[in-house]
Amino acid sequence: MKYMLNQNCQTRKNRIPIEKLRHKLSDPEFLLQKNRTVSKVKYRLQLIDLKLSRRYNRKIIQKIEHRLKKPDSIARKLTKKGCQITFENAREKLNDIVGIRVVCLYSDDVYKIASMVKRQKDFRLIKEKDYIKNPKKSGYQSLHLILDIPLSFQEDTILQRIELQIRTIAMDFWAGVDNHICYKRNPEESKKTERDLKNYSAIISDMDRQMLELRKKVEKI
Amino acid sequence: MKYMLNQNCQTRKNRIPIEKLRHKLSDPEFLLQKNRTVSKVKYRLQLIDLKLSRRYNRKIIQKIEHRLKKPDSIARKLTKKGCQITFENAREKLNDIVGIRVVCLYSDDVYKIASMVKRQKDFRLIKEKDYIKNPKKSGYQSLHLILDIPLSFQEDTILQRIELQIRTIAMDFWAGVDNHICYKRNPEESKKTERDLKNYSAIISDMDRQMLELRKKVEKI
Amino acid sequence: MKYMLNQNCQTRKNRIPIEKLRHKLSDPEFLLQKNRTVSKVKYRLQLIDLKLSRRYNRKIIQKIEHRLKKPDSIARKLTKKGCQITFENAREKLNDIVGIRVVCLYSDDVYKIASMVKRQKDFRLIKEKDYIKNPKKSGYQSLHLILDIPLSFQEDTILQRIELQIRTIAMDFWAGVDNHICYKRNPEESKKTERDLKNYSAIISDMDRQMLELRKKVEKI
Amino acid sequence: MKYMLNQNCQTRKNRIPIEKLRHKLSDPEFLLQKNRTVSKVKYRLQLIDLKLSRRYNRKIIQKIEHRLKKPDSIARKLTKKGCQITFENAREKLNDIVGIRVVCLYSDDVYKIASMVKRQKDFRLIKEKDYIKNPKKSGYQSLHLILDIPLSFQEDTILQRIELQIRTIAMDFWAGVDNHICYKRNPEESKKTERDLKNYSAIISDMDRQMLELRKKVEKI
Repeated sequence: MKYMLNQNCQTRKNRIPIEKLRHKLSDPEFLLQKNRTVSKVKYRLQLIDLKLSRRYNRKIIQKIEHRLKKPDSIARKLTKKGCQITFENAREKLNDIVGIRVVCLYSDDVYKIASMVKRQKDFRLIKEKDYIKNPKKSGYQSLHLILDIPLSFQEDTILQRIELQIRTIAMDFWAGVDNHICYKRNPEESKKTERDLKNYSAIISDMDRQMLELRKKVEKI
Repeated sequence: MKYMLNQNCQTRKNRIPIEKLRHKLSDPEFLLQKNRTVSKVKYRLQLIDLKLSRRYNRKIIQKIEHRLKKPDSIARKLTKKGCQITFENAREKLNDIVGIRVVCLYSDDVYKIASMVKRQKDFRLIKEKDYIKNPKKSGYQSLHLILDIPLSFQEDTILQRIELQIRTIAMDFWAGVDNHICYKRNPEESKKTERDLKNYSAIISDMDRQMLELRKKVEKI
Repeated sequence: MKYMLNQNCQTRKNRIPIEKLRHKLSDPEFLLQKNRTVSKVKYRLQLIDLKLSRRYNRKIIQKIEHRLKKPDSIARKLTKKGCQITFENAREKLNDIVGIRVVCLYSDDVYKIASMVKRQKDFRLIKEKDYIKNPKKSGYQSLHLILDIPLSFQEDTILQRIELQIRTIAMDFWAGVDNHICYKRNPEESKKTERDLKNYSAIISDMDRQMLELRKKVEKI
Repeated sequence: MKYMLNQNCQTRKNRIPIEKLRHKLSDPEFLLQKNRTVSKVKYRLQLIDLKLSRRYNRKIIQKIEHRLKKPDSIARKLTKKGCQITFENAREKLNDIVGIRVVCLYSDDVYKIASMVKRQKDFRLIKEKDYIKNPKKSGYQSLHLILDIPLSFQEDTILQRIELQIRTIAMDFWAGVDNHICYKRNPEESKKTERDLKNYSAIISDMDRQMLELRKKVEKI
């Protein structure tokens, strides 16, 4: 989902491992498994949305998106973690090769959705990171669930790791601006920009809170 | 997949039950389950195709199609079976509300595909009808597998009945002509037309056999 | 895109005209034309996004959505306008049977996109409504372009009316909350809720302005 | 649509020009134009199908497929034509970078469809090759229309070359077998195999003729 301004990881040294990675990531069987995983999780989310929307008499999920992490982005992350750029490391060290994002209107909806996801008996919750209660230093807010999703073929079942991000539209907006702006930061000015972005993150939390209060007021009417 | 020339089932008497059926068949949860089932089976078929195509060094599956049976068609079939036109009867008495069709080049591929489908541990085979070895009176040829496919949500697993038709392109062609022509038959001429169609079915079997022999000859080279 | 809580237009009196409308709106040729129009406009928007993203070195369009107006919603709007509920009135009096929405990060992007759309020689601009410079009383903000899009078939060219809404994510968020909440308003409390929503609209404009300033500052670095 | 058994064109000498080609063929603007062209032609074909199906009271078009020619396949064709492997040559010398295929039941339907396509005022017919009246030496049968399709953006209109193949299911079947088998031919045995395939082509023509006669008989009833 990111628009690459500079692929600063694609130095001469990394060119060949990244090419190998790209080749393995475009293997038809690998892609089929990933698409299958996405389609399985999306279906559950649609069903969850149907149930919640009926219960609360309003549309709960506003948007479901997914992306497969691109080779350059995998290489950058592995390098940052001090790992070699290989397909095996990508699969073992990274949780977000398959990323699915759910966007909703209100911050309490985030937890309603997460709670339903965690009740899917065949999904295994690996980790939960609540960046809403504890935002990242940058100001980033979202609820992350790392999940293992089972896929069957013949007698076998394989597990597929995914990262599910659940957030409000306002958090999604902030992440979009951050994502765009962070590519332009230079060391000198970055302190100032970072402070600004963090302030806006606080404004956004505030707005989410106000919107939630408004909704609750209206629901009581 | 059929093009309706006359919806001879939609008499005045049946109008209201068909409307009720149409309403229930367009329920979002029902549609979500059916689409989910189709997508699950199609994924397995794609994976089967990948494995077989690698093993035999040629593309095995030529086409995968699906259709949800339309209300009029359900009503016609229930009436023919002497059942009342209700959603419950549709679900309990009909195996082919969800129909998936796989088309391949050669008649031995039909059995290769079927054998792989039957090896899917979580699919339950309900019935197998081999209309290739024993064509229908009309001349119709295909291998039909009636299957129960499990879908999970939270703690529950529900079974979804499907009819999987596996056939060669030549058989698919005959079925297309039959499907078109049978709507025009009138009682007087029907005997003659039926005989013609049956003859063409024999010609088609013959062609399938010749193509298979040609392939085997070529494979030996 | 709206989630219907009460279909208050579907009174007994309106049931038959709405059924007729539904029938005409599901005519295959009508649907084909509408889908074709949507696909034509989306393609132009994707190409516009490609050109702008290259020029400004960042992803400009965040989301493109479309919807065909539902029969109930058409009926409600025609009734509000004092028109009879007919297919002909729907086509002649309503501009937004086909609605396409473009969402971007910053408020100046709205005008960049609009300017490119207006340069498409074969699109005819019927009306432009700038609810960003002049928000609606409710607080609603967006730029609306009413356009006629030509479709060819054989010797003929027919014009297809669409409403194109261009807005920032923040404006889109406000519209989502408004859309949800307006269904719950009751006369007594509505004054208060309306005032709240309007205030939030001002907050949102403010945030858009701050984000734009931040971007401009960063771009100068 | 072909399954590559041996990519005999990818010799060491050709590796770099093919890589360059692959890069240019995956340019987002190029892909957008090609997808747009396909979507425009498919829409016309769907509308043609709607009109013809109404006129003849049966479904005319059975299948619409498309493919973008793969880099290896482009390289092979350019080499065969004695041209260098460049993007410019691919665009100027090849008519079938975008290929669209329409499959119907009966051989007279081929000409009904072609006649409607030729009546599209904005499509420009470049060449028509009737391999049904004059099959290729191999036995291949189809009607090919080479067309230029106009695409607009801002003030400009660019022409997009496509190859439209129209054939019956039986012809499509033959082409599928030929396509598979021709990869396995070796010089010694090839004479015999070619003769077989040609014979089967004659059988298929015969069957198409019989099916057409059957339909005509039935239509008179």
